Amino acid sequence: MKPYREMSKEELASLKEQLEKVYKEYQGKNLKLNMARGKPSPEQLDLSLPMMDILNSKSDYTSVDGDVRNYGVLTGIKEARELMGQMMDAPADNIIMYGSSSLTLMYDTVSRSYSHGVMGNTPWCKLDKVKFLCPVPGYDRHFAITESFGIELINIPLHDDGPDMDMVEQYVNNDETVKGIWCVPLYSNPSGQSYSDEVVKRFAHLKPAAKDFRIFWDNAYCVHHLDPDHPDHVLDILSECEKAGNPDMVYKFGSTAKVTFPGAGISAIAASKANLEDMKKQMNVQMISHDKINQLRHVRFFKDLDGIKAHMRKQAAILRPRFEAVDEILTRELGGLEIGTWTKPHGGYFVSFDSLDGCAKAIVAKCKDAGVVMTGAGATYPYGKDPHDSNIRIAPSFPSLDELKMAAEIFCVCVKLVSIDKLLAA
Amino acid sequence: MKPYREMSKEELASLKEQLEKVYKEYQGKNLKLNMARGKPSPEQLDLSLPMMDILNSKSDYTSVDGDVRNYGVLTGIKEARELMGQMMDAPADNIIMYGSSSLTLMYDTVSRSYSHGVMGNTPWCKLDKVKFLCPVPGYDRHFAITESFGIELINIPLHDDGPDMDMVEQYVNNDETVKGIWCVPLYSNPSGQSYSDEVVKRFAHLKPAAKDFRIFWDNAYCVHHLDPDHPDHVLDILSECEKAGNPDMVYKFGSTAKVTFPGAGISAIAASKANLEDMKKQMNVQMISHDKINQLRHVRFFKDLDGIKAHMRKQAAILRPRFEAVDEILTRELGGLEIGTWTKPHGGYFVSFDSLDGCAKAIVAKCKDAGVVMTGAGATYPYGKDPHDSNIRIAPSFPSLDELKMAAEIFCVCVKLVSIDKLLAA
Repeated sequence: MKPYREMSKEELASLKEQLEKVYKEYQGKNLKLNMARGKPSPEQLDLSLPMMDILNSKSDYTSVDGDVRNYGVLTGIKEARELMGQMMDAPADNIIMYGSSSLTLMYDTVSRSYSHGVMGNTPWCKLDKVKFLCPVPGYDRHFAITESFGIELINIPLHDDGPDMDMVEQYVNNDETVKGIWCVPLYSNPSGQSYSDEVVKRFAHLKPAAKDFRIFWDNAYCVHHLDPDHPDHVLDILSECEKAGNPDMVYKFGSTAKVTFPGAGISAIAASKANLEDMKKQMNVQMISHDKINQLRHVRFFKDLDGIKAHMRKQAAILRPRFEAVDEILTRELGGLEIGTWTKPHGGYFVSFDSLDGCAKAIVAKCKDAGVVMTGAGATYPYGKDPHDSNIRIAPSFPSLDELKMAAEIFCVCVKLVSIDKLLAA
Repeated sequence: MKPYREMSKEELASLKEQLEKVYKEYQGKNLKLNMARGKPSPEQLDLSLPMMDILNSKSDYTSVDGDVRNYGVLTGIKEARELMGQMMDAPADNIIMYGSSSLTLMYDTVSRSYSHGVMGNTPWCKLDKVKFLCPVPGYDRHFAITESFGIELINIPLHDDGPDMDMVEQYVNNDETVKGIWCVPLYSNPSGQSYSDEVVKRFAHLKPAAKDFRIFWDNAYCVHHLDPDHPDHVLDILSECEKAGNPDMVYKFGSTAKVTFPGAGISAIAASKANLEDMKKQMNVQMISHDKINQLRHVRFFKDLDGIKAHMRKQAAILRPRFEAVDEILTRELGGLEIGTWTKPHGGYFVSFDSLDGCAKAIVAKCKDAGVVMTGAGATYPYGKDPHDSNIRIAPSFPSLDELKMAAEIFCVCVKLVSIDKLLAA
């Protein structure tokens, strides 16, 4: 195919006319398709249904920490801390179990730092200025947490091997108001990169100006490989920080949201014992214990990391064809046109698409008018402001394969139409 | 029996000698008894086991709000809002479902007020001074929440019909720094009173100096009657506030912690729509949804309020003999001695005991040395400071009936010994 920008205005205009017809046909179908959120499909959820048979009225509800049906055990039953520890690459002693969502765990961690402070440091609410570094494109819900506390968000470019570490070091090592950075180290949301060993080591060797600087390491996709035989691998930041003499500098977050049931899974934090002690003081005021019955249910279902891995192979078998379909259609429809690039991630939940500058909002709006809901353009940047208006997050997991294919076709038509408009106006 | 203070020093000394022997015998038994926390007994938990058969791998997981296994429905499925609404005396539209603990819900409500402010008012963290009223004796975990945010706690005497409303009005209507009051309106923790209609109406007619003053109405024991045929009844504060032109002045809290499983139940807040809208803005950043599978499990198990009431009759049948045993032993051992008074609550989880002034700490310590753990003396007052050192909270629910009886006997011996010491020293 000939790149669009090498076409004459006449060629583009005639192409536009043809595409308008195709677009109108799609509009006439009154479709309701959704590629907006990273939701598992019903087939994926069905894989976890056998877990619902694990505990019934005849079951034994005894954990090594006692009767899971009653109050107590603030940090979660030992069996669950061991299971999550295996999944998150940390000893059970460095794990605290949280509730049914790691998003809430991350929010509460920021909230605690804001109201109570981190390990004896001044609570952030008493400081004039607090800043957070945000590798971009990134996860909108991360940015929303820090934004809601009035924290200033700073864009850090995300390269193929991770965040721009020169820039990270520059900020963290010199600016005392920089208190944290949001990271999705494996299969980054949305662009799918995994951090290189060198990047992880540079993180571990940071010399923060702020004593209460913390890396918020959201290992959301730690077992979410699309090809389980060839998974990406990221160095364990917790032990790297320890080796580098920075044991307290990182919080690792994980959950089974996209392993079992979103919103009804189990979540955990892995961190140094000093961080966990600090956290426990405040947790002890906020709660008596999280849902230990659900912890036991997960433990008995998976048994160990091998159980989780076997389960995630089945998830991958459902997800892989969806990612392949999106890539196939984008390649067929947009290949060679030079009006967009997209990622081919090895895991996680998203394909990240970059349009010509200034086109993303118009593409998402055009999709919507044809019944295809995408994540809002700009959502992958702090304050919803994509400086190039070019990044669009595609979530292939939820729709059926047929719906997904149609949604991807429509998406391509919209990309073409908006790009032609841009080129014609140039 | 002759009151102790009418006895001569010789009589008291000889009595002490006898009691010391009894006490030593108990010590020799190396007992491990616990009357410290309001934990249901295993028999009570067994009553809820059939709920664990409600959802299995063959079940339908569809609520009126869709598939409960996936993300979404921030405020909880409608069926759960209806069920909790019936239990909490509020329409489903005035209910937001929360997680597995109403304690966390209350903490998060204070935390949100502190960091984000209430309905557009200045966040409490930006104010020089914030005060909370604390009816005493009261619930230590309530006081701990506000204390942890540096809020100044003010004791308000709790009378037979509720808090001292002259004092409440004086503070709330004149002091802009007073932002809230902790209430357990039905079967108050620990002293068991239920608020009179007049008290509820005076609450509803408060004219707060602070626009963001809120009543924290923890209806923890709303279905926890010891005699379900003759329950205490408290007027619905939410509709009373509405009638009085103060629709936004109250948050009502409830949960099934002591209906089904502590720490693995469901919880909810009932409030005006304006309050709920304010809350939702921040919740939307903190979470995607709570555990809707557990919501559906509870809904299918109970069906409606009648289902909950039938269940709570079974709970009462287990709890009542325990409360009767405590009262029987205290009456037999301490009746007429004038060294202590105690409550006979119609519901809830506690008996409140008042010793002679200055004796509570010594009694609790003496119990501990004989293997009987009680709630720490002072715990029922803000900052753990009981000005009279006289209140002790007795929790009869958890031990077996035999253990409970022995614990109560030992408690009485300790009360006698400490009281004699006080009288001898006078």
